[in-house]
Amino acid sequence: MSATVAVQNSDLDFDHGTFDSAAFASKALAGWQSLAAVIDHSLLKPDATRLQVETLCSEAARYHFACVVVNPIWTAAAVRLLEGTGVPVAATIGFPLGASLVSAQRQEAAALIRLGARELGMVLPLGQLKSGNYHAVDHAIRSVAAVAHERRAALKVNLETCLLTMEEKLRASEIAIQAGADFINTATGFASGGATPADVALMRGVVGARCGVKAAGRIRNVEQVRALLEAGANRIGSSASVAILRELGAE
Amino acid sequence: MSATVAVQNSDLDFDHGTFDSAAFASKALAGWQSLAAVIDHSLLKPDATRLQVETLCSEAARYHFACVVVNPIWTAAAVRLLEGTGVPVAATIGFPLGASLVSAQRQEAAALIRLGARELGMVLPLGQLKSGNYHAVDHAIRSVAAVAHERRAALKVNLETCLLTMEEKLRASEIAIQAGADFINTATGFASGGATPADVALMRGVVGARCGVKAAGRIRNVEQVRALLEAGANRIGSSASVAILRELGAE
Repeated sequence: MSATVAVQNSDLDFDHGTFDSAAFASKALAGWQSLAAVIDHSLLKPDATRLQVETLCSEAARYHFACVVVNPIWTAAAVRLLEGTGVPVAATIGFPLGASLVSAQRQEAAALIRLGARELGMVLPLGQLKSGNYHAVDHAIRSVAAVAHERRAALKVNLETCLLTMEEKLRASEIAIQAGADFINTATGFASGGATPADVALMRGVVGARCGVKAAGRIRNVEQVRALLEAGANRIGSSASVAILRELGAE
Repeated sequence: MSATVAVQNSDLDFDHGTFDSAAFASKALAGWQSLAAVIDHSLLKPDATRLQVETLCSEAARYHFACVVVNPIWTAAAVRLLEGTGVPVAATIGFPLGASLVSAQRQEAAALIRLGARELGMVLPLGQLKSGNYHAVDHAIRSVAAVAHERRAALKVNLETCLLTMEEKLRASEIAIQAGADFINTATGFASGGATPADVALMRGVVGARCGVKAAGRIRNVEQVRALLEAGANRIGSSASVAILRELGAE
């Protein structure tokens, strides 16, 4: 496990290569404060405005979410807005199709980190995976991971599981972790489906405690969050984060 | 009108700054061959495979579509597959959210043209538009247009009209053309709606004969194509292109 992973997953109850989902879920769900600490507060719709980014960041500072996730054009603004709050900014690259050139993704990764992003979210090149071009999948992830890790940033790799077969999910998880992913993520929310407990359980089963598992995509309430954490997620991505915390009593 | 636009829109019946939609539609719909010449044959889903790209290109060569449109990772393959056929390759950048860094879009634009792409499709930065940052919208488009035009490639700018108000559609059309768009395009097909005749008519009304108007997003049959051409489109983008031509008798 790289230094970056250790930092990013420092709240995990990793124990000799296994991950205790039940214990983690129970701890995370103990209150809204502990739940906020495992939620990536996200705003990725293409028509998000500057004002909405400001609201996102003020909510993140108030509830102390794990991070905010924004599209590249809002990264600099989010970094400025969150200065001094301790809440890091994550930015997407090649999102949500995962079909950009590797050279472009490397360039954007470096630029985003220069702007202050501490985490990057990329999408596994699904078409390459489905074409059996596993080397190309590995190369894409490894290239961006190298850019991220050289600059002490973390990389989350989205598998867009709703578009994958069971075998593809298993293979994607293994390639992503071998190529340097600090987290593997279920879904972008832009394709036909979102996070499911079954996908999370499968992904956690493959990676064990070797990397983080993020559940994202159409997560709207605590009931869903509970099921996903119990299935093995140690991070939740949502744009309904504040509503979720309110279910646990946050004001 | 730039040299590039003149080439790209050479089949338009431009006449003293007005565009005769009825005449253009009638000519384009005269047969499947003339219709193929105004259709961008597109494959943009994230899980598109190498085999599907090969099929796309062999269909494009057979029916002689205006171009093929692919995601960046398939550009080099499509260029090789279409060598000698006269069918150009168009590639997307920052697609479909339009929220990538301008520097990354410039870099990817140049890389795609080096790989052989002759047209680029970008998405207008919707969030900047909705935030009133018109200078940022202009800058993003102008920057990519400069990269394209220096290399004799054309730029299509997608407005994702389903996410815009009437006023935003008007403003987006005007900014795009002033910033150097060779075509403005209705929709990506990845948001909540596709091309509508009303949007096309509005866009054509703004741009007149100053640039092309492409209708794309959920276009599936000749009836839709007819309505969009009659409303003022001079290019159609579709992934159902072959089915559309078959309605007109192509085999």
